[in-house]
Amino acid sequence: MVVVMNETATEEQIQKVIAKLVEMNFDVHRSTGVNQTLLGGIGDHRNIDTRNFELLDGVHEVLRVTTPYKLASRAFHPENTVVKIGDVVLGGETVAVMAGPCSVETQEQMEIIAAAVKKAGAQILRAGAFKPRTSPYSFQGLGEPALKILQTVAKREGMLTVSEVMEVAQLPLLLEYVDILQVGARNMQNFNLLRELGKCRKPVLLKRGLAATIEELLMAAEYLMAGGNYQVILCERGIRTFENATRNTLDISAIPVVHKLSHLPIIADPSHGTGRRDKVAPMARAAVAAGADGLIIEVHHDPDNALSDGAQSLFPTQFSALMDELRMIAQVIGRKL
Amino acid sequence: MVVVMNETATEEQIQKVIAKLVEMNFDVHRSTGVNQTLLGGIGDHRNIDTRNFELLDGVHEVLRVTTPYKLASRAFHPENTVVKIGDVVLGGETVAVMAGPCSVETQEQMEIIAAAVKKAGAQILRAGAFKPRTSPYSFQGLGEPALKILQTVAKREGMLTVSEVMEVAQLPLLLEYVDILQVGARNMQNFNLLRELGKCRKPVLLKRGLAATIEELLMAAEYLMAGGNYQVILCERGIRTFENATRNTLDISAIPVVHKLSHLPIIADPSHGTGRRDKVAPMARAAVAAGADGLIIEVHHDPDNALSDGAQSLFPTQFSALMDELRMIAQVIGRKL
Amino acid sequence: MVVVMNETATEEQIQKVIAKLVEMNFDVHRSTGVNQTLLGGIGDHRNIDTRNFELLDGVHEVLRVTTPYKLASRAFHPENTVVKIGDVVLGGETVAVMAGPCSVETQEQMEIIAAAVKKAGAQILRAGAFKPRTSPYSFQGLGEPALKILQTVAKREGMLTVSEVMEVAQLPLLLEYVDILQVGARNMQNFNLLRELGKCRKPVLLKRGLAATIEELLMAAEYLMAGGNYQVILCERGIRTFENATRNTLDISAIPVVHKLSHLPIIADPSHGTGRRDKVAPMARAAVAAGADGLIIEVHHDPDNALSDGAQSLFPTQFSALMDELRMIAQVIGRKL
Amino acid sequence: MVVVMNETATEEQIQKVIAKLVEMNFDVHRSTGVNQTLLGGIGDHRNIDTRNFELLDGVHEVLRVTTPYKLASRAFHPENTVVKIGDVVLGGETVAVMAGPCSVETQEQMEIIAAAVKKAGAQILRAGAFKPRTSPYSFQGLGEPALKILQTVAKREGMLTVSEVMEVAQLPLLLEYVDILQVGARNMQNFNLLRELGKCRKPVLLKRGLAATIEELLMAAEYLMAGGNYQVILCERGIRTFENATRNTLDISAIPVVHKLSHLPIIADPSHGTGRRDKVAPMARAAVAAGADGLIIEVHHDPDNALSDGAQSLFPTQFSALMDELRMIAQVIGRKL
Repeated sequence: MVVVMNETATEEQIQKVIAKLVEMNFDVHRSTGVNQTLLGGIGDHRNIDTRNFELLDGVHEVLRVTTPYKLASRAFHPENTVVKIGDVVLGGETVAVMAGPCSVETQEQMEIIAAAVKKAGAQILRAGAFKPRTSPYSFQGLGEPALKILQTVAKREGMLTVSEVMEVAQLPLLLEYVDILQVGARNMQNFNLLRELGKCRKPVLLKRGLAATIEELLMAAEYLMAGGNYQVILCERGIRTFENATRNTLDISAIPVVHKLSHLPIIADPSHGTGRRDKVAPMARAAVAAGADGLIIEVHHDPDNALSDGAQSLFPTQFSALMDELRMIAQVIGRKL
Repeated sequence: MVVVMNETATEEQIQKVIAKLVEMNFDVHRSTGVNQTLLGGIGDHRNIDTRNFELLDGVHEVLRVTTPYKLASRAFHPENTVVKIGDVVLGGETVAVMAGPCSVETQEQMEIIAAAVKKAGAQILRAGAFKPRTSPYSFQGLGEPALKILQTVAKREGMLTVSEVMEVAQLPLLLEYVDILQVGARNMQNFNLLRELGKCRKPVLLKRGLAATIEELLMAAEYLMAGGNYQVILCERGIRTFENATRNTLDISAIPVVHKLSHLPIIADPSHGTGRRDKVAPMARAAVAAGADGLIIEVHHDPDNALSDGAQSLFPTQFSALMDELRMIAQVIGRKL
Repeated sequence: MVVVMNETATEEQIQKVIAKLVEMNFDVHRSTGVNQTLLGGIGDHRNIDTRNFELLDGVHEVLRVTTPYKLASRAFHPENTVVKIGDVVLGGETVAVMAGPCSVETQEQMEIIAAAVKKAGAQILRAGAFKPRTSPYSFQGLGEPALKILQTVAKREGMLTVSEVMEVAQLPLLLEYVDILQVGARNMQNFNLLRELGKCRKPVLLKRGLAATIEELLMAAEYLMAGGNYQVILCERGIRTFENATRNTLDISAIPVVHKLSHLPIIADPSHGTGRRDKVAPMARAAVAAGADGLIIEVHHDPDNALSDGAQSLFPTQFSALMDELRMIAQVIGRKL
Repeated sequence: MVVVMNETATEEQIQKVIAKLVEMNFDVHRSTGVNQTLLGGIGDHRNIDTRNFELLDGVHEVLRVTTPYKLASRAFHPENTVVKIGDVVLGGETVAVMAGPCSVETQEQMEIIAAAVKKAGAQILRAGAFKPRTSPYSFQGLGEPALKILQTVAKREGMLTVSEVMEVAQLPLLLEYVDILQVGARNMQNFNLLRELGKCRKPVLLKRGLAATIEELLMAAEYLMAGGNYQVILCERGIRTFENATRNTLDISAIPVVHKLSHLPIIADPSHGTGRRDKVAPMARAAVAAGADGLIIEVHHDPDNALSDGAQSLFPTQFSALMDELRMIAQVIGRKL
């Protein structure tokens, strides 16, 4: 921590700050400059509320110099984390693709879609059993029967599964049926849920909150890792901005930023990130070109009659054509898909 | 719903949209203009995904004309909702003040603070038992013992209580000890929690999410009301913007906007809305001047040693001076405090 | 400047950073901590691109510790700047009110409105001669004839005038006719215009840009002051956020923030800040309650037929009632209006 | 325009709205629904302030159905606009690349960089002569001598030139020396400048403002086109969001959105969009993968000593390697570079 004193700070004010730093077990380094005095507080304290210093008299600003996360940081763990589940690898050379409908609706629907996305090259089948919906009057998901269908169909196709867990109480059910536990954007800071998932030993797909900074995303990952679960896959799915030509603004630059700050793999969700079918392909290509470790894409064989989010689901033929493009783009940057 | 066709849309494209509207049980009114054709879809469907029409050929834009919420809207319920709990009234002539520390720490701490805020005029004692913290290494709250202390101290002072419920499993405990159940900003769209709270018959203080629009706040209220719980108090507590001179941007204009769109009372939280003690008083005054139905303010007798959020807590003397100012401002606009 | 090294930085990397700091004439203070090394660069350099250090190997982060503005900062000039123009004082005990129509339309229109706002207590008459309009098909202002009308009418009423200058070429004209030169939000970073205004010796009303941070607003003020023009009045007029229930989000908290960081007066514009007549009064009251040094408010006697922005103009009777409320709120916080 | 009445609106209120629509020369279509009445106002009025209707009693909401721009819209002009300058084509099959330093510093600097970017495949040489700087204490550009150097060096290399015009007074100079006139992000709504550029017959590169919606960008293009200058190239260069891990958030999705709404070409600026050299290559690849019609990239042979923005400039070897990747990505989506 560095405490920057006002240019007009008195010696007495400076001494009070020093005393407080010492009281909190910091080693203090004082730098007296032409304009200002800086006080460096050296110590292993990731969890300080810097505002306590900002409010002292004579203090101009307080700068935290340690990242508030540790286990998730590349400084702590320079090598990439590679999440391996069966034959599927996330965070390595390969770009992994998760695809499927927004919600499980029927066994037949899942069979048609799974066969199509598998054939096009997807390795992981996605579909929701519990749906967080902004309207209390909307379809809320089929629950356990959906999970059974998901598991059955994926097994037949030789695919892995990913599905969202919305609260702690659903966790046992999800653990029984799926390979990757998804935390939705609205739950990125549901700390009770994160704590429980930290105790699991299954990979977690952690979606960035609509208004979460990348630092907060890494803090949420830290919750999982602090519990001992290191198999964390991050997911950029769009942030809220003033622009409303798209549902959200897919922050493609989060991909290289996360790769610099953290060792964890990061994938992109162009379906939720744009909210409209005709924008999914360009943004999927952009994500892979920017170095994403994977994608999660909504596909539906009959989106007009989908029970949720049909408007952002690709038709199977569109998905297949997209996969061909992605394969070539991955090669350009030395990866496979 | 109004479907706006492109200026170049063909008659065939228009007919396809009409067919789809009819199929979805809308009455269709067609308006053929100089430049464009408009198709009005008339019917009682609050829950349509307009994107399904946007993707049809020839469609320029689809405009939803019904608000997605109903029970929370002033059109449905023109009179103000007045929440009465004992002698305390929210949404009426009086401006109600909730005050107390961020977290319950000890019985002694609560006694000192409760006595001070009661004397200054607060009617409701606030304090957290379960704390959502962005860092897994931070103080997480005392749990049930905190609730017991909160209840005991409030009773002695003749105050009501408000405390946050973070997940469904905590609900029985909260119901036993507190008078107003608080839903935190991060849980505004925790739909399972909202659904359970909708079944309760205790008032809910619903905080606006950091990135939630006012419409989404009212949708969340709708979840509660759809379950039969009409005692909903909304709370503006700051939104995330590009400005970082303050922790969040307290959106004071949300107060008159909510008063126009909804009949529900709305209060403001200047402590979380600014994150710094020296900004709390000006923003509390601003909120009351703009017509807020109440305030929730953090107060601590020893903020330097508070276990959480000390930096945004007022000293009791500051709170007392602020209450005097608020009393006079309330009078200016014909209210009492 | 403080350069924070990575936890894994090598001694060689640290030495390279030190060499670069020395090369740029910084005194270097090194603090070696348990986890990390910090390098304090001490010197009077407000104008360093810190990214040049961020890109060096082994560097975690670079923190600027000097504000990039100096003349505008309270550290440099602890006393409030008080702008005096004739009998009108901005930044002192009094809250000054500027009022009038969006645009000058006719002499008669100006006479009616000026008489009304003067009677209600406004001291400064506002009206535009040159209008920046988002549509090329909209009314663009009357130009010089408008300025003549503004000056004539204000003189008769014993008022001062404020009007917007949109580009350097208009400056001579504005200097001839108005008392306060307004820089619009879209021109806050029109540096050529700021530079020319810095050479003038007339007060400038500098509006915060729609997407400008408070720091950038103070940097723009610095441009004016660096030229020798110290009579700068800042104006909060709403920022762009994700919320679109209001045209912009009036950032009331900018008022106490500016008062802490700078000695310059700050006023608020609730008309542009909300964009709708029915939100102007609550937000005007909020701004004064938060400590604004003044207000600028649009008033029109016939807003339905105004050539621009009628929807956000108060009727004269509304303005008069608002002024009565504001007078009482100002008193509560020890000010006059 | 569609006026949506409140569910509780009276017949009298409805009649008043109809009367106002008729008064403003709209044809009125009334749709009476189960819950609400809709009034469609049909007519060729792109320039209506819808707030004038919103404020009428009984009105719930007013929806504009005509885009506020016309010449820039794809509905008006379904074919892509292809800007041809000499051998260079923007908006066609080819992806055009503009490259060069942030500012012209010396003839030697320009010769080195121009030779390098030309060899790597860039067709257009970029460099600033007038620099808008947020600090009054920063390098402000060399002015006319810079333009002479730019022109001389570009001619020798057989390249076109692009440089920024900051105000109307600079226009004659820029017209003399450069092939493409750049409007910077801060000037996107400098309507006087746009109006003058509309009278020119040289291509304009129009950068999206930091806080401008895509609709506003197209409105700014409309200003140019309304004056008769149809050679408009749009440029996405990053928007301001709450995330500050990057200088701005490059909105890659603006590329497919513009391609749907407008016929104008759009390029991307990954240098300003990210602000850091190590993020430029991934974002440049993403932009081309998403369908950008071109790129503008900062390159400097000695960025450590660049007078401005060195931190976001690529080294020539990095640029050359990037161009090789871009060439392959362009092919994947059926384009050339």
